[in-house]
Amino acid sequence: MKRTSREIRTANRYRVLRQAIADSPVSRPRLAAATGLSTATVATLVGELTDLGMLVDAGFEDSGGGRPRGLVGINPGGGTLIGVDVAETYVHAEVFDLAWTVLARAERTLHPADSAPDQVVRAIAQAVRAVAGHRAAAGRRVLGVGVSVPGVVDREAGVLVFAGNWGWRDVPLLRLLAEHLPHRLFLVNPLHACLAAELWSGAARGRDDAVVVNLGTGVGAGLALGGELHRGASGSAGEWGHTTLVLDGRLCHCGRHGCVETYVGAPGIVQNLRELSPLSPLLHPDDQTETIAALAQACREGDPVAVKAMRETASYLGAAVADLVNLLDPEIVVLSGWVARRLGPPLLHQVRQSVARHALRRPAGRAEIMLSPIAANPVSLGAASFALEGALGPGGGARRG
Amino acid sequence: MKRTSREIRTANRYRVLRQAIADSPVSRPRLAAATGLSTATVATLVGELTDLGMLVDAGFEDSGGGRPRGLVGINPGGGTLIGVDVAETYVHAEVFDLAWTVLARAERTLHPADSAPDQVVRAIAQAVRAVAGHRAAAGRRVLGVGVSVPGVVDREAGVLVFAGNWGWRDVPLLRLLAEHLPHRLFLVNPLHACLAAELWSGAARGRDDAVVVNLGTGVGAGLALGGELHRGASGSAGEWGHTTLVLDGRLCHCGRHGCVETYVGAPGIVQNLRELSPLSPLLHPDDQTETIAALAQACREGDPVAVKAMRETASYLGAAVADLVNLLDPEIVVLSGWVARRLGPPLLHQVRQSVARHALRRPAGRAEIMLSPIAANPVSLGAASFALEGALGPGGGARRG
Repeated sequence: MKRTSREIRTANRYRVLRQAIADSPVSRPRLAAATGLSTATVATLVGELTDLGMLVDAGFEDSGGGRPRGLVGINPGGGTLIGVDVAETYVHAEVFDLAWTVLARAERTLHPADSAPDQVVRAIAQAVRAVAGHRAAAGRRVLGVGVSVPGVVDREAGVLVFAGNWGWRDVPLLRLLAEHLPHRLFLVNPLHACLAAELWSGAARGRDDAVVVNLGTGVGAGLALGGELHRGASGSAGEWGHTTLVLDGRLCHCGRHGCVETYVGAPGIVQNLRELSPLSPLLHPDDQTETIAALAQACREGDPVAVKAMRETASYLGAAVADLVNLLDPEIVVLSGWVARRLGPPLLHQVRQSVARHALRRPAGRAEIMLSPIAANPVSLGAASFALEGALGPGGGARRG
Repeated sequence: MKRTSREIRTANRYRVLRQAIADSPVSRPRLAAATGLSTATVATLVGELTDLGMLVDAGFEDSGGGRPRGLVGINPGGGTLIGVDVAETYVHAEVFDLAWTVLARAERTLHPADSAPDQVVRAIAQAVRAVAGHRAAAGRRVLGVGVSVPGVVDREAGVLVFAGNWGWRDVPLLRLLAEHLPHRLFLVNPLHACLAAELWSGAARGRDDAVVVNLGTGVGAGLALGGELHRGASGSAGEWGHTTLVLDGRLCHCGRHGCVETYVGAPGIVQNLRELSPLSPLLHPDDQTETIAALAQACREGDPVAVKAMRETASYLGAAVADLVNLLDPEIVVLSGWVARRLGPPLLHQVRQSVARHALRRPAGRAEIMLSPIAANPVSLGAASFALEGALGPGGGARRG
């Protein structure tokens, strides 16, 4: 891994801060033990983070008679972070303090007809201004804004390379946003944002090898391997939705056949139901969100067609999750996204059975499978965490002393 | 990633040594630039590796009039490493110097009837003794022996957890070997060994994100992500052969249906040919090696059935490699293993076309697909590299100054 000393320093700062947020208040030796860094390095990094206003002294640890150890804690007033979840139909923004408490939220609806870049940019800017200017966050410095957008992102160039549902190609989104907003801005992929949310404050806290499966209209998987987000060589790792589950199977909008997404994305689940019962009253024409909600409700009531459609969906999903388990051998697989939230525990239960049937014994015995415990929007939380990482790097907007 | 300082130190030693082997002779500043470590750290590590007899001073760099910079190089006489490739039908051992020159080779045949643990252990011990005692290696200290075995390995316990073709379960292989051999011994998974060989001296040198696809009787994929081997939580990552390509497809010996292995492993390729032409003269009953060789030869001669069987195999393989490209977004995919070597450039050519058809544009545009350039046995080379890594760790057998 050819990283410059500066990149390593930023990564280590981030590691110490992440651990401090998880354990606050915490002693320096404990930070060293948890991060694998030397005590001297941790002491230096804690000093830097204190100078940046992110950490503060937080009293002393009871050491049972020995010399008391100083503790450091998060400085909630040290600045705010804004995370934005841009989806096809809405823009959702949240502002957080450094303890990841949500201080304010704002939402703007996007109509399909209003999806030109300048319209979307204006909606994002409005939502960010609304939360930054909210009285709960007023007067605190914004350390950075992370914006998650539905498509292929070139993070370093700040360009949305491709957004299928909008028909966008190579839109210089960060530059357009910078005309409206004075903050430091970071472009993020929603899969990476969901993964970061689970690593920071969800089911994957403290895990090295985690997969966060995101089930929505599209599906994908955020990968943490060896304790780090795996971005891939072109920044587009995680396109599990476009791996083959059924060679020559259902046609996918990507042009291939039999992609995982065509069986377990929301339109795929609707299709599973329609194939079982073409006239099912659960099918809401042109409204997949309603159909998924009706399916979940009918399952809870024991409706046999709904139960069967759920079982079939879980069987596809289990086979596809088993592929991730066999290939990557993770500690945990987290089911996230609005479809997973809607279908909830019955889906989880059946997916676990299906994975046990499909995966090899050793990795299947190791991998926990869980629903995301994050009640709020994981994408905006995750996007904000990338803004925090950015703020720790060179040129970061964090306040000095 | 919670690693102890000692583990980080070992990993950094390994990084510096790997770079020094790749670039020998090389200056300390260049090592620092290539590894991302500080100059001071590199100087310390070079000192340690020199004390261990692995590096030596190697003159000065011409600096065009400025102060000459000292160079360090590999000490070929600093010790030897032995790598052993244990397959179902043979044991192949090689002894290397620290510049990865093969000093001697030995092979023992394993008959299917002689596959009890003590018989296999005796064959391994004989092969290791043969190369360690060969005159080309005589008098040099053996730093370690890496043994790759076909099955699921618990590396830390030194146990072969499961070997399907032998019917072994939980065999304490390292303990049994230690009764015969005085050397430091390391148990290795063949997928990880093939990957290490490509990273050290094959197609993946200098790459951070690489996938080495191993095509033999079984198939699998060694994964290097972020510059490091990805082992997985239970050490069994890489079971790409047991990911689903065709839901409810061909029965696999693992008990699932439609695994990648059933289409592109040697028996799967034979099956592809048999389905096209049940009476093909290319089919050698009970000898898949001969059948694959005949298929390769007939392809070169333009035989239409052979060309079609190759095209179908490449189409399956391309779809399955595209899944790796979409999910992991690697810089390079290397086709390795005896089947890839046999089928060679025609297979590569068609797999590239199939991947271009099946993978998403962005990661497909980034990923190079290549045949392994390693002429010798990559498994024994890779196994020996793990012995080198082990020898750098605490308790390592490397000679002191």
